Amino acid sequence: MVVSDKFYAIVAGVGPGTGRAVAIRFSEDYPVVLLSRSSGSYKDVVAEINKGGRKAIGITADATDEAALKSAFETIKKELPGFKLAATIYNVRPNSRPSRKPFLELTSEDLDVSLKGNIHGLFNFGQSVVPLLLEAVESSPHPPTLLVTGATASIRGSKLWSVIAAGKSGQRILAQSLAREFGPQGVHVAHAIIDGGIDVPDASHYPTNEGTPENRISPYAIAESYWFLHTQHKSAFTQEIDLRPFIEKF
Amino acid sequence: MVVSDKFYAIVAGVGPGTGRAVAIRFSEDYPVVLLSRSSGSYKDVVAEINKGGRKAIGITADATDEAALKSAFETIKKELPGFKLAATIYNVRPNSRPSRKPFLELTSEDLDVSLKGNIHGLFNFGQSVVPLLLEAVESSPHPPTLLVTGATASIRGSKLWSVIAAGKSGQRILAQSLAREFGPQGVHVAHAIIDGGIDVPDASHYPTNEGTPENRISPYAIAESYWFLHTQHKSAFTQEIDLRPFIEKF
Amino acid sequence: MVVSDKFYAIVAGVGPGTGRAVAIRFSEDYPVVLLSRSSGSYKDVVAEINKGGRKAIGITADATDEAALKSAFETIKKELPGFKLAATIYNVRPNSRPSRKPFLELTSEDLDVSLKGNIHGLFNFGQSVVPLLLEAVESSPHPPTLLVTGATASIRGSKLWSVIAAGKSGQRILAQSLAREFGPQGVHVAHAIIDGGIDVPDASHYPTNEGTPENRISPYAIAESYWFLHTQHKSAFTQEIDLRPFIEKF
Amino acid sequence: MVVSDKFYAIVAGVGPGTGRAVAIRFSEDYPVVLLSRSSGSYKDVVAEINKGGRKAIGITADATDEAALKSAFETIKKELPGFKLAATIYNVRPNSRPSRKPFLELTSEDLDVSLKGNIHGLFNFGQSVVPLLLEAVESSPHPPTLLVTGATASIRGSKLWSVIAAGKSGQRILAQSLAREFGPQGVHVAHAIIDGGIDVPDASHYPTNEGTPENRISPYAIAESYWFLHTQHKSAFTQEIDLRPFIEKF
Repeated sequence: MVVSDKFYAIVAGVGPGTGRAVAIRFSEDYPVVLLSRSSGSYKDVVAEINKGGRKAIGITADATDEAALKSAFETIKKELPGFKLAATIYNVRPNSRPSRKPFLELTSEDLDVSLKGNIHGLFNFGQSVVPLLLEAVESSPHPPTLLVTGATASIRGSKLWSVIAAGKSGQRILAQSLAREFGPQGVHVAHAIIDGGIDVPDASHYPTNEGTPENRISPYAIAESYWFLHTQHKSAFTQEIDLRPFIEKF
Repeated sequence: MVVSDKFYAIVAGVGPGTGRAVAIRFSEDYPVVLLSRSSGSYKDVVAEINKGGRKAIGITADATDEAALKSAFETIKKELPGFKLAATIYNVRPNSRPSRKPFLELTSEDLDVSLKGNIHGLFNFGQSVVPLLLEAVESSPHPPTLLVTGATASIRGSKLWSVIAAGKSGQRILAQSLAREFGPQGVHVAHAIIDGGIDVPDASHYPTNEGTPENRISPYAIAESYWFLHTQHKSAFTQEIDLRPFIEKF
Repeated sequence: MVVSDKFYAIVAGVGPGTGRAVAIRFSEDYPVVLLSRSSGSYKDVVAEINKGGRKAIGITADATDEAALKSAFETIKKELPGFKLAATIYNVRPNSRPSRKPFLELTSEDLDVSLKGNIHGLFNFGQSVVPLLLEAVESSPHPPTLLVTGATASIRGSKLWSVIAAGKSGQRILAQSLAREFGPQGVHVAHAIIDGGIDVPDASHYPTNEGTPENRISPYAIAESYWFLHTQHKSAFTQEIDLRPFIEKF
Repeated sequence: MVVSDKFYAIVAGVGPGTGRAVAIRFSEDYPVVLLSRSSGSYKDVVAEINKGGRKAIGITADATDEAALKSAFETIKKELPGFKLAATIYNVRPNSRPSRKPFLELTSEDLDVSLKGNIHGLFNFGQSVVPLLLEAVESSPHPPTLLVTGATASIRGSKLWSVIAAGKSGQRILAQSLAREFGPQGVHVAHAIIDGGIDVPDASHYPTNEGTPENRISPYAIAESYWFLHTQHKSAFTQEIDLRPFIEKF
């Protein structure tokens, strides 16, 4: 398939693992916008994609900041005039990773960080992108999609994971609620439970699952799953998928 | 059983429904502290319990406000010197009930209200009461208990319920995480999924389930279930219970 | 409360643990019928209850055998003329405990045993007792009840537990389906997930949770929970409850 | 990718909907064996695939009959000498569809039919294919796979669906248990919750989702999802996926 000149994708939250791999995969079919809190996170990925003859744009914006997000979409309008939004991935990791620690040692700030990045962020991002996805329903090659990166903590409040689990589970149910509201309008909202540690492959390598350690998830395999979810026919939408290494206990 | 002169209970979040009924039920065995954002919510219940020869204390405090909560526990220390904390019920309803409305009509404030009341509130309350409950493990008549009032939205992101469900599900998983951390230390953390509308009986009536409309839950029946959870033997703790009217579809 | 002269209870599946404890607990309020595949399982419990001035009847019948079950209810009609059925507990353990073993070492018979005891048994038992429970809806002191003893395997297919989990999960969903069909008609169907090993106390002792090892569930505590479920007001039915030792990992 | 000359796939349970579509999809990469209780179910599909230059073999066998299954695999050995088993789909619908009806109107035979087709069938099929899948782990192009077709009743005991739900939920948990046992050995076991009615397209048409009614699932879309599951990298196995029409309420 040739790269569409009409539709684009956004990946919010880009690091060397899932974000980079997903951006690379979606760039095979769409120009890709990478949103991140710091340009350091996306600079190399943007360069890597553009060097390969595809198109990527990096924008510095915090998804939990409504104004920053608004300004990001104005930039996109200028950079990709006439393009519609076909695919969005919310892959933001909270600002400073909340510690996995005993409940009584946590601070209110630890909780804030988790809720902000996981729930407020998806809320703001969703309010920005859903109207744009709805505009693309009739014309986009695949049903316009909002994908959310979840984790084991999205469905389980393990010991010592209290604030992380509170944020991830709230995020998951928010995505579920959006799926029920916007699915019938043609927008596909899906949530992926990533159950395992993600391998960060040497970025200079061509995208491949080769060499993934047995106890790690290849980010390219996640990216393939996200692409699969995006391209599902509207008669068979998946709302939730789990992904884990074959040797993972669960 | 005579009212203990050594242990007390706290109900955070008191209205004419569940909060009042639970306070009345627990006052049969313990002096009860009622926490609420406004004295109007607890005044009548406190009077009703004290008039009946039992003991209740009302304290105005917002569970989401760390300082207010700290000051509340200082008041309790003075009012109930030498008492240990045996039972706590987190029954707080978010500040102004977030609207059940289309996602794109919600504001960031609607989300804040839900997360604050449901998650931050339980987090702060938990950090205040868990150390006190741990102190009571060896001596209290029943395992020290933290009960949390959940709802259908705690396990399901229905259409139009996005911010409420995000808050309730995060709250539920937080409680689950606390159960896994503090259960083995002897503190019983349980979550109740209240699946249905609650009847608000005429407060002048003696506590009874009589007259509950078929499609409503009697708050006295909830209170009985909470008391049952509190008195469970430590060899058979329940972590989650659902409660619904017999005719409720689910 | 005096023993009712109008209503009785049935416990199907009686051993020295849960079955015995539940029979003893329910005999405080009802004459109790104990069903078991062999008289050796109930003889001592029946004697123990009758010696204490309460009433128990033992009947040898396999719940998975329709004819045996039919004949058992004819016996009950003669032994307890005019009595209505208020409470039933399905606590049957499959005929010979299916081995917890590698899937490829299991035989078709292992599967049969699990499905027969767990699903066919509850199906037959349900078809026998539900019509009787429906007859008691208007008059019984508490909503007529069908309680089912589940296990961790009821909600989880662990490695090596395949046939046990297939039977228990099918049983759980069957109970859930009955709850949805007969709840609105006034019959309370509830399922208990017993998550842990059950202590078998010295039967000569008075019913008490004392001395339960930390990693075991007291059968008397299970019995208390079953009694609680039976006595719930119809405005607040519980469909599922979990019970585990406070130190159990989950 | 060229059709492999080394590996084959089996679809157990073939009708004009899911079974046919999955067989067609997998025949793009493997010779496909179609198992069905009657040759009428697979004859046309086998002809359709062979006519298209791919290879399909139909075998009449009831998956719940151990001897028939054994004989089927002997036939396969002769027909596809030297081939290894790479992909298996358990898509069997119980013998005569158990009625969706009131519990008290069901017979023991209704239950038998559901348990036999759903649980016994998967058990027998699993015992036959898992050893063959294990043999293919090192050499097959994708991780050897066992896919199971589930339904809404696999996770929910709705009113009137008791025996169907008992069978489907037992089947689901059995598949889950196999996933936990054989995943670490390299065999991918996944369960698909098909939540909606399946469209049966005009079989003379080329496989396409075109024309699927809005409230139906395209069987070709299911087939695409099954193929996706089969080709997942072993670092990112999905155990469970849900599939429903975009307008379906859930």
